[in-house]
Amino acid sequence: MDLAASILSGNRLALARLLTQVENHTPEGRQALDLLFPHTGHAHLVGVTGAPGTGKSSLVNQLALFYRRQAGKRVGIIAVDPTSPFTGGAVLGDRVRMRDLAGDPQVFIRSMASRGSLGGLAHTTSALAQVLDAAGFEIILVETVGAGQAEVDIARLAHTTLVVEAPGLGDDIQAIKAGILEIADVLVVNKADHPGVENAERALRGMLELAHPVRRVFRRHGQAVTVEAPPPAGEPVWLPPILRTVATEDKGIVELAAAIDRHAGFLRQGGDWARRERARLESETEMLLQEALNSRFRAGIPQGKYEMLMARVMERRLSPWEAARVLLDGRQA
Amino acid sequence: MDLAASILSGNRLALARLLTQVENHTPEGRQALDLLFPHTGHAHLVGVTGAPGTGKSSLVNQLALFYRRQAGKRVGIIAVDPTSPFTGGAVLGDRVRMRDLAGDPQVFIRSMASRGSLGGLAHTTSALAQVLDAAGFEIILVETVGAGQAEVDIARLAHTTLVVEAPGLGDDIQAIKAGILEIADVLVVNKADHPGVENAERALRGMLELAHPVRRVFRRHGQAVTVEAPPPAGEPVWLPPILRTVATEDKGIVELAAAIDRHAGFLRQGGDWARRERARLESETEMLLQEALNSRFRAGIPQGKYEMLMARVMERRLSPWEAARVLLDGRQA
Repeated sequence: MDLAASILSGNRLALARLLTQVENHTPEGRQALDLLFPHTGHAHLVGVTGAPGTGKSSLVNQLALFYRRQAGKRVGIIAVDPTSPFTGGAVLGDRVRMRDLAGDPQVFIRSMASRGSLGGLAHTTSALAQVLDAAGFEIILVETVGAGQAEVDIARLAHTTLVVEAPGLGDDIQAIKAGILEIADVLVVNKADHPGVENAERALRGMLELAHPVRRVFRRHGQAVTVEAPPPAGEPVWLPPILRTVATEDKGIVELAAAIDRHAGFLRQGGDWARRERARLESETEMLLQEALNSRFRAGIPQGKYEMLMARVMERRLSPWEAARVLLDGRQA
Repeated sequence: MDLAASILSGNRLALARLLTQVENHTPEGRQALDLLFPHTGHAHLVGVTGAPGTGKSSLVNQLALFYRRQAGKRVGIIAVDPTSPFTGGAVLGDRVRMRDLAGDPQVFIRSMASRGSLGGLAHTTSALAQVLDAAGFEIILVETVGAGQAEVDIARLAHTTLVVEAPGLGDDIQAIKAGILEIADVLVVNKADHPGVENAERALRGMLELAHPVRRVFRRHGQAVTVEAPPPAGEPVWLPPILRTVATEDKGIVELAAAIDRHAGFLRQGGDWARRERARLESETEMLLQEALNSRFRAGIPQGKYEMLMARVMERRLSPWEAARVLLDGRQA
């Protein structure tokens, strides 16, 4: 109660403390989340994902600076990437000028302490974002490493997801992106001053056209011409734009922020904003329900019975599925 | 029943069909898994994980060839890596001579169709491995891309986990490994004919010493000397060895297979084999229990009530946690 009130009044120390409690799934954190929940729903959650080496931390840094200086917005940053300098003192540390953001009371930076968090990384990240949202941060940038399923799940929680690429990372890394592309709202080719930027952009465009087959190639006077097919009547369509940036030199950031803003407008216009919110809140409710259901059920099983069943599973006399059924039916009887 | 019997009699078509059903979580697949379960527990599950570009697919290929030709063992391969040539026609395809394995009736290669599988990637992979185990495959190589939490979870299911590295992949990729190292039983520096192999090996050794602080540095005549501290009395200790390979030239494969074999011996000797089995079967039972519990509970909630609660959550009048509690308590009343 106190903690939630302190956060609503802008106390940064209370904010930091609550984020830790939320990350550790304490009952106090749970309670504060409940009290803060009515104050959420105002922030624009922007996921920034990409392979290591794409410079996405620098990009997050420059975007945050833009939102502070040009747009006057309050910015939260959640880094879920163990290689990110935002998680403190990692390899890239020197490349990102964190001191540009440090000390600004309108910026709050938080890194996830561990990958193997209770209840799933995506849900913990979502809860942290809710706290920052309630605390009045208007743009929340969530940085993930963009390789595994957990990162894809986190990206799904965002309203807008940027997928960051860089030239010259090799074919292997290109291939990984296939799954990541599905979640991209905006594609960024960072380090656009490096050689190979055209190739990287072409590869992305090719993959995009596979994923979003709205463009069609026609032949005109014997030459291939790409023509945009008309979008389906009556519903707006968003084709992920591909933007070039050089984050370390602050190039392309204004255009990127504009694209992010246009995407938010698109989401609100077509009802997708509410749909994404609903999906996120629904998945959170489901997880909490499942946790509670499970712990209630478990409290009713005598430990000896569980041990006995697991011993029979180890002996291959009972399959895991059969053991689960015995536990369930024993409880019912 | 028929399907399970066909698989036990060595029918490859039935095996392929069941693997698809298991991947799709069909009731028929579930039933066959139950029937096959008493026949499992014989295979050695070897996880092979590493970043894209480390050549781990080539390594899996060479290991499989070794097990076939030198050890005469039946080999199953499960590729959970979307960039793997084993998943069919990917970028690296030409580099791995898949035809060495294709057509061998004692080898079975399976790739996971999708990353977003029901019930979790790790559990689906475990179920596929169980089927191959029951079908008599003695070594099951599970290839994962080794970057996200899902891959770590899969690696945890294996008896032995190889973490594959390669020289010159850059600092960013080195940093990612910190979390992966914890699960490594054997470290492989593949592409050991490339420049930078010493650096890669040194970096790994440094990280290993942080993770497994068994070595201690002493000073002798003013010079730092690294001395192995004696292992704790009465319990065997496994220090992950670091091995060099050049998979494309079949170099170091015999030594790697020997290390894998020694690790299996270590696990069996100290009781860790049974402990890992138990952890895997327990986590499987838990997941099945949770699924069943959840669907039973859900069947008892009128759809209208759920919708009404979610609408109130969307309006921020109820938190997800409060909604979950109403669902639970409504059920109890």
